[in-house]
Amino acid sequence: MKKILAGLTLATVAFTGMAIAQDAPFAREIKARQGIMMYRAINLGVLGAMAKGEAEYDAAAAQKAADNLMASITLDASMLWPQGSDNSANPASTALAAMWEEGSGIGDKAKAMADAAAAMQAAAGVDLASLQGAMKGVGDGCGGCHKAFRVPTN
Amino acid sequence: MKKILAGLTLATVAFTGMAIAQDAPFAREIKARQGIMMYRAINLGVLGAMAKGEAEYDAAAAQKAADNLMASITLDASMLWPQGSDNSANPASTALAAMWEEGSGIGDKAKAMADAAAAMQAAAGVDLASLQGAMKGVGDGCGGCHKAFRVPTN
Repeated sequence: MKKILAGLTLATVAFTGMAIAQDAPFAREIKARQGIMMYRAINLGVLGAMAKGEAEYDAAAAQKAADNLMASITLDASMLWPQGSDNSANPASTALAAMWEEGSGIGDKAKAMADAAAAMQAAAGVDLASLQGAMKGVGDGCGGCHKAFRVPTN
Repeated sequence: MKKILAGLTLATVAFTGMAIAQDAPFAREIKARQGIMMYRAINLGVLGAMAKGEAEYDAAAAQKAADNLMASITLDASMLWPQGSDNSANPASTALAAMWEEGSGIGDKAKAMADAAAAMQAAAGVDLASLQGAMKGVGDGCGGCHKAFRVPTN
């Protein structure tokens, strides 16, 4: 019965599209993790704009953005990444199944990101040069997962 | 020029739909805040299932879910709710403009939610009765904003 229901749900999704996409596999987890990713992007955008000179350096605003980035990274997201919740199960996700494979190194990559965010948190409020010095690490941290485990978007 | 570009963007959104909805007004903020709401719903679901007896009470899992709920509520979301980012500006949002009106009481409602989440955090890991006792407060906390400031969904 469960299998029949799942089949019906998939068919419904295929024919009615976005409106019912909440019923798609792992739709809730994907929505939550993508929203948290966007939260990181928004706060990282504040830091990036200062680093590139597109916005004036503001120590308090930089510190706040870095604190937010760190808080969003230390937020327990373990329940948002169940096995199978990749792009092949639900195209709303851009996560590749490779992430869940034995030896993917996802744990190390997540730790590298957290370390880079901590370094940014220590640097962002000091001065512009410190913020700029911490940007590459954060970019590498993001890229660690995105390059390896995200559907290429060109 | 900026106005012309904005006009073009709106027209593009109207004609090409969801794929380009990221360009819609406040799309990034709305995506982030809805994702964080979903994160809360997922963790609250763990607590609710135990409270209703649909899942066996598990003190560690309950505590973790309550900790997660609290962490997601203390996460600084101030940048996600800019004035004007309501349902009338972007139908992807279900937020009513009334939230931003003088005297809407949004600050008190947010504080009530945070207090309820803190009470749940103190109760969830104690025993099932304590968890159940804290559920109404959390439900009222959620409802405080959702009833007043969310587009009715019937």
